[in-house]
Amino acid sequence: MLNQKRLRDYGVKIGRLETGSLNSITDVEGVTVGQVTLSNKEMQTGVTAILPHQGNIFRDKLIASSHVINGFGKTMGTIQVEELGTLETPIILTNTLSIGTAADALIEYMLDHNPEIGRSTGSVNPVICECNDMQLNDIRSKFVTNEHVFEALSNTAPEFKEGTAGAGTGMLCYSLKGGIGTSSRLMSMEHGTYTMGVLVLSNFGTLSDLKIKGKAVGEGLKDTNIDIQEEKDKGSIIIIAATDLPVTERQLNRIIKRAVTGLSRTGSIVSNGSGEIVIGFSTAAKIPHEKTSDCHVISMIHEEDIDLAFRAIGEATEEAVLNSLVTATHVVGRDGNERPALKDLITKYNIELTE
Amino acid sequence: MLNQKRLRDYGVKIGRLETGSLNSITDVEGVTVGQVTLSNKEMQTGVTAILPHQGNIFRDKLIASSHVINGFGKTMGTIQVEELGTLETPIILTNTLSIGTAADALIEYMLDHNPEIGRSTGSVNPVICECNDMQLNDIRSKFVTNEHVFEALSNTAPEFKEGTAGAGTGMLCYSLKGGIGTSSRLMSMEHGTYTMGVLVLSNFGTLSDLKIKGKAVGEGLKDTNIDIQEEKDKGSIIIIAATDLPVTERQLNRIIKRAVTGLSRTGSIVSNGSGEIVIGFSTAAKIPHEKTSDCHVISMIHEEDIDLAFRAIGEATEEAVLNSLVTATHVVGRDGNERPALKDLITKYNIELTE
Amino acid sequence: MLNQKRLRDYGVKIGRLETGSLNSITDVEGVTVGQVTLSNKEMQTGVTAILPHQGNIFRDKLIASSHVINGFGKTMGTIQVEELGTLETPIILTNTLSIGTAADALIEYMLDHNPEIGRSTGSVNPVICECNDMQLNDIRSKFVTNEHVFEALSNTAPEFKEGTAGAGTGMLCYSLKGGIGTSSRLMSMEHGTYTMGVLVLSNFGTLSDLKIKGKAVGEGLKDTNIDIQEEKDKGSIIIIAATDLPVTERQLNRIIKRAVTGLSRTGSIVSNGSGEIVIGFSTAAKIPHEKTSDCHVISMIHEEDIDLAFRAIGEATEEAVLNSLVTATHVVGRDGNERPALKDLITKYNIELTE
Amino acid sequence: MLNQKRLRDYGVKIGRLETGSLNSITDVEGVTVGQVTLSNKEMQTGVTAILPHQGNIFRDKLIASSHVINGFGKTMGTIQVEELGTLETPIILTNTLSIGTAADALIEYMLDHNPEIGRSTGSVNPVICECNDMQLNDIRSKFVTNEHVFEALSNTAPEFKEGTAGAGTGMLCYSLKGGIGTSSRLMSMEHGTYTMGVLVLSNFGTLSDLKIKGKAVGEGLKDTNIDIQEEKDKGSIIIIAATDLPVTERQLNRIIKRAVTGLSRTGSIVSNGSGEIVIGFSTAAKIPHEKTSDCHVISMIHEEDIDLAFRAIGEATEEAVLNSLVTATHVVGRDGNERPALKDLITKYNIELTE
Repeated sequence: MLNQKRLRDYGVKIGRLETGSLNSITDVEGVTVGQVTLSNKEMQTGVTAILPHQGNIFRDKLIASSHVINGFGKTMGTIQVEELGTLETPIILTNTLSIGTAADALIEYMLDHNPEIGRSTGSVNPVICECNDMQLNDIRSKFVTNEHVFEALSNTAPEFKEGTAGAGTGMLCYSLKGGIGTSSRLMSMEHGTYTMGVLVLSNFGTLSDLKIKGKAVGEGLKDTNIDIQEEKDKGSIIIIAATDLPVTERQLNRIIKRAVTGLSRTGSIVSNGSGEIVIGFSTAAKIPHEKTSDCHVISMIHEEDIDLAFRAIGEATEEAVLNSLVTATHVVGRDGNERPALKDLITKYNIELTE
Repeated sequence: MLNQKRLRDYGVKIGRLETGSLNSITDVEGVTVGQVTLSNKEMQTGVTAILPHQGNIFRDKLIASSHVINGFGKTMGTIQVEELGTLETPIILTNTLSIGTAADALIEYMLDHNPEIGRSTGSVNPVICECNDMQLNDIRSKFVTNEHVFEALSNTAPEFKEGTAGAGTGMLCYSLKGGIGTSSRLMSMEHGTYTMGVLVLSNFGTLSDLKIKGKAVGEGLKDTNIDIQEEKDKGSIIIIAATDLPVTERQLNRIIKRAVTGLSRTGSIVSNGSGEIVIGFSTAAKIPHEKTSDCHVISMIHEEDIDLAFRAIGEATEEAVLNSLVTATHVVGRDGNERPALKDLITKYNIELTE
Repeated sequence: MLNQKRLRDYGVKIGRLETGSLNSITDVEGVTVGQVTLSNKEMQTGVTAILPHQGNIFRDKLIASSHVINGFGKTMGTIQVEELGTLETPIILTNTLSIGTAADALIEYMLDHNPEIGRSTGSVNPVICECNDMQLNDIRSKFVTNEHVFEALSNTAPEFKEGTAGAGTGMLCYSLKGGIGTSSRLMSMEHGTYTMGVLVLSNFGTLSDLKIKGKAVGEGLKDTNIDIQEEKDKGSIIIIAATDLPVTERQLNRIIKRAVTGLSRTGSIVSNGSGEIVIGFSTAAKIPHEKTSDCHVISMIHEEDIDLAFRAIGEATEEAVLNSLVTATHVVGRDGNERPALKDLITKYNIELTE
Repeated sequence: MLNQKRLRDYGVKIGRLETGSLNSITDVEGVTVGQVTLSNKEMQTGVTAILPHQGNIFRDKLIASSHVINGFGKTMGTIQVEELGTLETPIILTNTLSIGTAADALIEYMLDHNPEIGRSTGSVNPVICECNDMQLNDIRSKFVTNEHVFEALSNTAPEFKEGTAGAGTGMLCYSLKGGIGTSSRLMSMEHGTYTMGVLVLSNFGTLSDLKIKGKAVGEGLKDTNIDIQEEKDKGSIIIIAATDLPVTERQLNRIIKRAVTGLSRTGSIVSNGSGEIVIGFSTAAKIPHEKTSDCHVISMIHEEDIDLAFRAIGEATEEAVLNSLVTATHVVGRDGNERPALKDLITKYNIELTE
């Protein structure tokens, strides 16, 4: 997308399923992504917003589920997602200390679009996810404002920038520059072809562990004696999974739990300090906010169809993480801290990603 | 049922919803209960079997869920119920040390009815629940055999004995004789009238805590200086909830979590040694074992309809526990240990259950 | 406390355990509570802050746990509490749409007290709880500011106002005016006497269900034909439990799960729209933020001691809810909506709370 | 162990941590493993027993935890392990339809060793794990008897056979012969050196997915056109993790959740039909069955020490799975069904496991 050189442009294909046309979470019909990038010296942060569909998500909710791979994180909104099985707001990604601001802004946005909230109907459940970009960003300054969140929400589109962009501006991955990455897979079943899309905000791992399609690229880079400090992993990864597969919230939960398989294959040990959270939603059905006089009828796949979705999310997560790495650009931030871009190292050291 | 004097026969009505015609779990169409009672001196135990529907439950599974109120218990089968959201066998209740036998017998029963298990299809997930009847029963002797389980499975019917019967033969409740109890509630919604049925195997609590419709009957009994040893609560309660309400497994899980409200109103503090497990299932949809070429379509209530089910399960659980108490009969068992029947005490001490 | 007439002043004693000297969460050594009350026409809301101990909670964390009774709520911070088993900030209670602001303010407060956050150490996990006070408060106006949160944090004390105060200013309970309530219990064990303290923010229930020590006070009030609209329960209850009992996070979780027994005895059915969350912490051990070279040594009670804590939290929760009801005062708020105070009705209708 | 050729004998080292002396779960002091192998035509099954320590495990329990990766399985005993955080019996592994028998036998064994069960103390919580060996074993015949379980429990030792042995006799892995595998890692911390040991019962996966240290060995084998039927994955994997690291049950739970990282690196997608369960225990503390008059004092690592345990369990799980594969032998079983041994294919096709 947007002319960035992505993993497949290096000749590396992950897994065996076909990708969607953009190889992006936005291959799922109706999903769009908007970003605000704040990059200037000590300020290396931003906001990424995901619209689950193009209608009024509060009035037409989507079946959703969350999964905590490692709970050293501050993601908001999952209690209600789990209880009610629905998502009723866009999803906002930002840095850890800006979650209060992001929550306040998303509440404001929802109030603007739904005058009945707090009047004739109850409240709203904002979903905010975060990673800690303190190495490159002066996170204590809380640069993100309500307006940045509104802007990200207003500029969403099917195509968006990966790597050093939006909430990913100041994030690290495997001791290199990380950030936003995405990928998708098609799932061909008897009753139709469906899409699984994944977007990650990558901010975890240490260089030695990095593997690309099984190849120990991280160890190879270490051998070049490049000057990369492998500090203790205090990162996180946020994984957003979208699909148009007809599933119940239980089935969706089973699917998003498998994101960890792809993550593991990039070398992750899911370290203590790394908050790793998955949020998934399905666009296959809309759950009305207002009480209906009848029961609601939904479609669900037979459980034996689900393996394809398990494979799809693992592959898409693995590729999304690697896309975040290969698209990221070199950043110098707070106190002169910097992180190299994998793509620069690939050029400099003539690294072959394929075997 | 079966001419036993039940709570309502004492003039006590719990809650505000109407009961089904039998005021029993079997008011849910298709549900039947069978029991084997083993009562002879040191042997005071048995088996209670619940058929969720009258067809082949392995081939036509039901949406199901489980909830652990207190996990000091050995109930089997809940891992798969939670993962797949379905029940594929009858439910067997027995004493704690007979769960191995009961599991083996239920597997045998399922193999007999489904020759394809272990051949053209995979395995089967038996659901076995238990309480510890060691005060009145020589539990170490493991009196229950495979044949007892087969017998309970073969003699199920809409009407069945409460109190000192089946798995409840040797169970205690609030230091008195407890055992099997049941109750049901009707739920009238815009789109139909549904039934919530509850069956309990009661074996928990100490006398002082017993409350009947808010009245401190337990404390009253203590004041009569009757000779009841209030030993440490090492009991349990198993709560089986059946309904014909169209719900997803998430909704069903929300509903069965509310059983604890009724339990609490009888005086329970959910003590450490008391394994308290709820298993719920809905007969509204059948989930086919064999993969279908199409998606499956299910109905689910709007979430705003669910409060009625929350109220129903609380009321039915409260009344089922009290039914187990007032129907139970005096038992002398292992080593001459005995437990009085509440109904005898009511007569002896002229206890008014109503205010 | 503070000369308010509380439940025991009406002659009603809940349960059988003794209370602490203040019958308050602040009977747990080191716990203090601060509040800001915003009450003026359309503005009926506020902030309640709980300091778990008087030192630096970020550097000396407490063992903590959370429990979701019903997840229709927006409480923040529980993911990390569950993963790490510790609490590292004060707890803030406010209205649902002010959680973003409250989170931002608490982050600011933590940054001020801990200059190493975001520099030499990672981030911080704010714990914010909420109920929806939209009936009496113009919640869409988001009256709460960062300064209100700072003020509540700075004015904490062992004694504090119950009922219509702090976050409880605009809350309802059983269709009457509710809000802040507290109670405590002493737990006498072989190895010492410990305290269990509970603070609730009550905002749930419909009048007909209200029970006081088993007595159907709500139904009695309905019979007086007073003009109380019993709208659909869209409330919530937040339950904060503090103790000095030496427990692991698993034991603490078992304890706080029992809060529901007390809640149920006041008549709750835990309705759909009512977000019901419990946060518990133990002051018995301090868990250092900085890595130590040695292992940490902690004390834990034997599991057989835990029943006393189960009883204590049930009793304290039941009494805290009732304290929130009997101390609350009549409020007229948004659009002239009003809620009567139970204490006024007691006087007006000569209601006997005792049998 | 026992002169079997294991993964490291092929020159493949997984990860970066050192192994214990046997590279086995039994490197954890006190842990022993016993097996009964039933291999004769249609009968290809068995029992594997793990003693967590050499004393009376019922009277001196160990801190324990369980984790469900995928719940399509029938493992028994985890409800109580989760509630109480302790293991009080040996662990038995067998085939899916023999869990009733295994439970009954383990109960019998516990009754024999603890005459107070069911008399002066309560009941006992047997832990039984299973995989489905129906391809090679006539599982419907339920060949396992109580005596087989007693025998496995009585012949435990530090060294034991991997591959086609005990419960692993009839199991498959990545469409090849699988079964029992083990591995261990040393964890060197400031306060001591600890061991993490893993034993797996492998019975999952399809050939195309198999990866050995990142190398797509499965795809390579497919290219040889060998005649291996890749049927739908209906398998399972049981992962038992033992350690002497001082941890609370929460910490142990965090650790065992990371087993999935190693599993994923062998190529698993954690498919629908594969019940994947982890049981972990720590030998660092003994929790007395009988109530003590004092609190219990336990040691726990600082949370920042835990990354080493995360790495250790991932590496040991990955290697244990691969050990189960390379040690397994060719089996012809039920209806002439057979599975090749990886070691035979390595020889036949001159496969290089190292790059």
